[in-house]
Amino acid sequence: MSEVIATYVLSGKSGTFEKKAEGIALGLTVGSWTDLPQLEQEQLRKYKGRVVEINELESDTAEIRIAYPSGNYSNDIPAILTTVFGKLSLDGRVKLTDIEFSDDLKKAYPGPRFGIGGIREKVNVFDRPLLMSIFKGVIGRDLDYLQSQLRAQALGGVDLVKDDEILFDNELTPFEERIKAGTNILREVFEETGARTLYAVNLSGRTATLREKARRARELGADALLFNVFTYGLDVLQELREDEEISLPIMAHPSFSGASAASPQYGVSYSLWLGKFLRMTGADLSLFPSPYGSVALDKKQVLAIRDELVKPDEFNETFPVPSAGIHPGLVPQLIADFGHECVINAGGGVHGHPDGAAGGGKAFRQAIEAVLDGTTLVEAAFANKELDEALKLWGEGAAVSVKK
Amino acid sequence: MSEVIATYVLSGKSGTFEKKAEGIALGLTVGSWTDLPQLEQEQLRKYKGRVVEINELESDTAEIRIAYPSGNYSNDIPAILTTVFGKLSLDGRVKLTDIEFSDDLKKAYPGPRFGIGGIREKVNVFDRPLLMSIFKGVIGRDLDYLQSQLRAQALGGVDLVKDDEILFDNELTPFEERIKAGTNILREVFEETGARTLYAVNLSGRTATLREKARRARELGADALLFNVFTYGLDVLQELREDEEISLPIMAHPSFSGASAASPQYGVSYSLWLGKFLRMTGADLSLFPSPYGSVALDKKQVLAIRDELVKPDEFNETFPVPSAGIHPGLVPQLIADFGHECVINAGGGVHGHPDGAAGGGKAFRQAIEAVLDGTTLVEAAFANKELDEALKLWGEGAAVSVKK
Repeated sequence: MSEVIATYVLSGKSGTFEKKAEGIALGLTVGSWTDLPQLEQEQLRKYKGRVVEINELESDTAEIRIAYPSGNYSNDIPAILTTVFGKLSLDGRVKLTDIEFSDDLKKAYPGPRFGIGGIREKVNVFDRPLLMSIFKGVIGRDLDYLQSQLRAQALGGVDLVKDDEILFDNELTPFEERIKAGTNILREVFEETGARTLYAVNLSGRTATLREKARRARELGADALLFNVFTYGLDVLQELREDEEISLPIMAHPSFSGASAASPQYGVSYSLWLGKFLRMTGADLSLFPSPYGSVALDKKQVLAIRDELVKPDEFNETFPVPSAGIHPGLVPQLIADFGHECVINAGGGVHGHPDGAAGGGKAFRQAIEAVLDGTTLVEAAFANKELDEALKLWGEGAAVSVKK
Repeated sequence: MSEVIATYVLSGKSGTFEKKAEGIALGLTVGSWTDLPQLEQEQLRKYKGRVVEINELESDTAEIRIAYPSGNYSNDIPAILTTVFGKLSLDGRVKLTDIEFSDDLKKAYPGPRFGIGGIREKVNVFDRPLLMSIFKGVIGRDLDYLQSQLRAQALGGVDLVKDDEILFDNELTPFEERIKAGTNILREVFEETGARTLYAVNLSGRTATLREKARRARELGADALLFNVFTYGLDVLQELREDEEISLPIMAHPSFSGASAASPQYGVSYSLWLGKFLRMTGADLSLFPSPYGSVALDKKQVLAIRDELVKPDEFNETFPVPSAGIHPGLVPQLIADFGHECVINAGGGVHGHPDGAAGGGKAFRQAIEAVLDGTTLVEAAFANKELDEALKLWGEGAAVSVKK
């Protein structure tokens, strides 16, 4: 059947959920049903919402699933969100936890252009988790400052560096200048070390300017785009992904996503927002708070995001990027939780290293190597000065939190 | 000073809010401060976030206000949301309740093109609240069905009719055909009655197609656009407003806004979302749940939305449209709460009338007239058959709820 099935968790009295579910299924589709003449029922049957399942979870909470036939909406995210959660989002305690698309509808979504495989090819690394770091304290700084930070990070052996998501077009470091400067520095480092680092520049500004700006970024040799998708719209991300003239990896930042997803009882689930929808609409990398740091999602939520990004599907896989509060001592835990197919992303855990960002990057790479070799970090620290320093500073595991 | 000041309500322990606020003000701007050399402090001072105010509300909640200098972001909604609530939205229980723009920043936003005054001119009604009704049960129906509903509503004396927000482009009633059919019917009714009814057609589809589609709507003689702005983005609304070739009234639907605004502890406030931002970015009408119906916001929230829409400001006023659960018996209450400068909007309260939508519209108009004349509804019902029937069915006040 051509339809989407939405899953909701809602509050109410035990025994009332069936009626409530039926009310939603009709109210958000054909409006009324039992009072319609037989002939009209026949005509409208293919548009009628259908209660698929009702599970009472606790005395005052139930998970319900409702199917919405595809004849009711155009197959785009705005129309589907309006159908399944437009009015309903305003109607008391109800959370939209999932939307399943029938195969025919799913085909309209692009998924990531590059995905995990494509990003690995770009950095030529296939046998370990990737390492990413973030510019730190770059607001009010000039291009020289950015360049020296970028150089230090790249020399530390990070595979990707991303703009700070709060760095927008500005006089000191305009978008195009950042791309040019970044490209130059990273070419230099490549010539010195043979290692390829990608720089994701923050694509920002008015919505209608984004595509042209992204195309220009590509012309200038940009490696990747960072995008604060949730302050624009998932459909805008999808359009950037679909544009053949852009054709750059897109790193989706979770900025503002908590406004819709953080509440346990309202809005949408993180797994739908940062997981399924980012993958469907074409993010190559999805950043989300790790379960270890100070911006903490619980582990179940985080693993649900990861599952949506990498589970077998017709789309390319999206790289999971657990972020916030990451230091080298957490690498064994990260790899245990996320496997090899993740990007380990650190801000303070790279820049706060006693030897600076280059030392921080090295400490991470040493930690990753140790885990892949089956060595403990403590053992590996004997032969690896940077890792040793990192462990002295931050310890092992999640006990000590890193300043973001 | 050129800045935005964000107001947050957040959870925490009494006595810790000062430190927390300082952490936000720095973390979302220059990163660190006290450990910077004097010279760098001088250079960065104009970018540094500033704690404006901390009010402890209860033992574990505080309202804090933080100023973000304009050098930190481009002056657009996505950049400002990312700055003031990007990372923070993911960081525990925190609600963004307001953003104040300094006058110079505010000037970049268009406000409504028509506003209350412009809409009143279009319908040629200046001395009473306007009346709006909504198509009902139109999914799966053909153009004839829509036309006869539209005709009945217009004959009832409603000033505006809006598409159901869940009606998208579809085979039976495509966008352009709806505009043509609607325009014809309303011209006919105007010739019969002399009353002008506006029809707001639902502008939907992929983001990049909206402007072209809206321009085409204007060419075809459309009266107004309905727009599910929160499934796209506020910046997209602003772009539609700014486009001189569109130049049609925009009716913002609150669809999906609850995902970000419904939680008392997370996300954004309704007054910011459905009030201030819709007005700034250019909605001529803002729909929101009334405090009387079954989709109930509390009255304080609703009046806060209204205040943002009509308070003295450099922008045109946006028409407040309290919706959901409205029947003629509520008109005295509505006018008491919202004054004359509102649009009374009903679905079931128009269509569910014993004499159909035409009777429902008349009953509302009779109720409005009674209130303006200082007559009670019960008195007015003696001379007004439709109002009499409505009161028999739904009563007076909010006691009986109307099926949506």
